[in-house]
Amino acid sequence: MIEKANVAHKLSLFTDHWSPRIVGEVNDSYVKLTKLQGEFVWHHHDAEDELFYVIKGALRMRVRENGSEREFTINPGEFIIIPRGVEHLPSAEEETHIMLLEPKTTLNTGNVESERTLRELQRI
Amino acid sequence: MIEKANVAHKLSLFTDHWSPRIVGEVNDSYVKLTKLQGEFVWHHHDAEDELFYVIKGALRMRVRENGSEREFTINPGEFIIIPRGVEHLPSAEEETHIMLLEPKTTLNTGNVESERTLRELQRI
Repeated sequence: MIEKANVAHKLSLFTDHWSPRIVGEVNDSYVKLTKLQGEFVWHHHDAEDELFYVIKGALRMRVRENGSEREFTINPGEFIIIPRGVEHLPSAEEETHIMLLEPKTTLNTGNVESERTLRELQRI
Repeated sequence: MIEKANVAHKLSLFTDHWSPRIVGEVNDSYVKLTKLQGEFVWHHHDAEDELFYVIKGALRMRVRENGSEREFTINPGEFIIIPRGVEHLPSAEEETHIMLLEPKTTLNTGNVESERTLRELQRI
């Protein structure tokens, strides 16, 4: 059954951080929403590109590419795509809401297993 | 080279309707931006799901599914995913700006060849 999704409404259904919810399925990817604050862990995904679109707040993204590190601040209405293989560290000073697009196979912490690794994501 | 993209800025770079621009590449898909007004053509995509996220305006989407027709109005901050095989007709009364996500192989008019079919999309 086709339904439209309202991002703000879906975001109102949860409050925790670093725990993406699945809100859509498109081809081999999931559309996810997540809230985040603080710093995540450095990681990469061997075979998956990830898109981060910022809804609210400001997403800080450190990336290591060709031996150098850069930092981006992604504001609402902006997105960044992290290609497979690229080490990255998302963080946010204030609470930040993002829409993610990544293959269904993607594990949130990529190559790094930690207590932040989530294997089962809730659909809302 | 990783760069962030500002959707409003990218949208300011063109004015024509029904002519999607490529603004990103994620896995096997393109992220596209397009402006539209008026009515497109009924079509479907045999093997590709499409995501329509509305930035500005209001996207009207008629869909035919299991022998019945429904109509959605997708407002800014909302999205709809049209699964492969589903006949759909996008339209917009006022000028509407949308972000699209679809496989690189997707032709804008799907199974229907017309003067609106575009084979080469510009990257901005």
